[in-house]
Amino acid sequence: MSKNRTALALLTEAEVLDFLPSPSLERLQDLLPDLEIVDPLTDEFGDWPRRLAEKRPEILITGWKVPTLPESWLEDPNYSLRYLCHCTGTVRKLIPRAFLDRGLVVTNWGHSISRVVAECGLLLTLTALRRVSSWSIDMHLNGAWKTPDVYVESLFGRQVGLHGFGNISQHLARLLKPFGVRVSTYSPSVPDSLLESFGVARAESLEDLFSENNVIIELAAYKPENRHLVSEKLLRMIPEGGTFVNIGRGAVVDEGALLRIAREGCLQVALDVYEVEPLPADSGFRGLPNVTLLPHLGGPTIDRRQDAGAHGVDNIERYLKGEPLESVVSLSVYDRST
Amino acid sequence: MSKNRTALALLTEAEVLDFLPSPSLERLQDLLPDLEIVDPLTDEFGDWPRRLAEKRPEILITGWKVPTLPESWLEDPNYSLRYLCHCTGTVRKLIPRAFLDRGLVVTNWGHSISRVVAECGLLLTLTALRRVSSWSIDMHLNGAWKTPDVYVESLFGRQVGLHGFGNISQHLARLLKPFGVRVSTYSPSVPDSLLESFGVARAESLEDLFSENNVIIELAAYKPENRHLVSEKLLRMIPEGGTFVNIGRGAVVDEGALLRIAREGCLQVALDVYEVEPLPADSGFRGLPNVTLLPHLGGPTIDRRQDAGAHGVDNIERYLKGEPLESVVSLSVYDRST
Repeated sequence: MSKNRTALALLTEAEVLDFLPSPSLERLQDLLPDLEIVDPLTDEFGDWPRRLAEKRPEILITGWKVPTLPESWLEDPNYSLRYLCHCTGTVRKLIPRAFLDRGLVVTNWGHSISRVVAECGLLLTLTALRRVSSWSIDMHLNGAWKTPDVYVESLFGRQVGLHGFGNISQHLARLLKPFGVRVSTYSPSVPDSLLESFGVARAESLEDLFSENNVIIELAAYKPENRHLVSEKLLRMIPEGGTFVNIGRGAVVDEGALLRIAREGCLQVALDVYEVEPLPADSGFRGLPNVTLLPHLGGPTIDRRQDAGAHGVDNIERYLKGEPLESVVSLSVYDRST
Repeated sequence: MSKNRTALALLTEAEVLDFLPSPSLERLQDLLPDLEIVDPLTDEFGDWPRRLAEKRPEILITGWKVPTLPESWLEDPNYSLRYLCHCTGTVRKLIPRAFLDRGLVVTNWGHSISRVVAECGLLLTLTALRRVSSWSIDMHLNGAWKTPDVYVESLFGRQVGLHGFGNISQHLARLLKPFGVRVSTYSPSVPDSLLESFGVARAESLEDLFSENNVIIELAAYKPENRHLVSEKLLRMIPEGGTFVNIGRGAVVDEGALLRIAREGCLQVALDVYEVEPLPADSGFRGLPNVTLLPHLGGPTIDRRQDAGAHGVDNIERYLKGEPLESVVSLSVYDRST
């Protein structure tokens, strides 16, 4: 492995602590002995385009606080950036498309955060079934206690439908395993062999998925043709007493329709994502007792940012060894992202 | 198997539906062709001691709504009750001790409800880590949204300590498996082989359990010597940023100490059980943002009462075949129960 590659990490102090706790930082410094770490929130960062020109990094490591890369940098005759290892998610605001056109390789946290999002999906499902949201309000603010025939439900014995079968759904299928529930998915592009390895059944259509399961967990990717794909008609196919959880993307669901149905009070709804975020203060979902609301907490919790950091260090090691990288943001991924 | 044993089920209509959905009721009627089902809430039930004397049941099946069995029945020269299959939990209020002294065999729902209680333990743990209770209040009532550095946590990477290793803890260990967390338990009477089969480590003392895990799930049985066993000293041993969950018995914990510590705001606390239930409306736990409160929902949810019913039918089949019963309420179990 060739060493002494020029590398610059643009991370705040807090990001270094959260994403690169020991031994990740030590591993990174061992891989890149000339690594310079600069906090993009400090004063000196003001003329960072100049610093980029001086440092001429081949590798750039970035976090949330880095402003958009200046396109003018591409005109620098000494421009040498080849790999940008982004420690978090979307790169659209960070990297103008022209950098990718010039061949810049970009990776992000990719599937390293999937298990924590899957965990949030299980949490929201159990929360909705056991009515934790409305009990939290009633117990804390209304001095409440249960009545003898309080209606709460268990996940045991349910049929769970996963809309989409990417990395998060796959992790969720693992977390659901010990509940022994029947899990099925609608994800036409996924091969039978993958579903079989997870013990997950295939739904032949979205209509089958929604009508044959009493817990639906929404995890379909957002792309323009998926906008409002989960329509009122589909939502009304969920069997009576069912539960709808969204930890994927808000815009995949017709939120107006979901709100109309939620107001009828029969469907349990648990949402972590919304078409408009932050969720407006006057959203009709707020205040409904059969709705659980989280403020998009499904992403990596602070204590698991270290997973994304370790994933980045793994990728840097792969890059230095000339091995294929994981979680590459290709031009087509870039164009589909928001 | 001899048939035509006299049997009487004292269950409400709702209990029959909840505990004995198809095929359990059909199985029961097949086992006991002479079974009579009487709703203890109906008018005719007024002189049920007379009906007991007339029916002379060998087998009695009971639910929540049956009043205390009259001790006078024991003096009836035709008294013939040999087996009481109680579909729910505690029998102290239902059965005077004298019936057990006379050799009555009693069973209850026993471990058939363990997995649903374990599920509630996982739910409370995830709820506390992801702060679902306070987010529920803030999202629904305060129009809230997260700030960039919202602090929530994941179960991945935690160390979980289970106080007690009975059936509920064993089910919980199964549910925790896909999280890959280190699980240890303090339960001196449990053999190493059982712990090994669950991949659970042994803590040598309660002090070790509380100081070496950042999630403690309280599941120790209540017996007089366990009263307030979980003391302020123990609770303060939980590492900083830890979580304490009680789905076992309220009285095992020194609640005054727990409240003092909860008020300091560092420990996440999630409670389903309390020393005094219903939890008083003016309890100091109510209103604390780092405390999750449920009104003793850990028991079987209505949709899983069928597990307890099926367990009862299994026991009746065993009884008729002369096989050993499960979940027997022996005199020593009876005396320890509350």
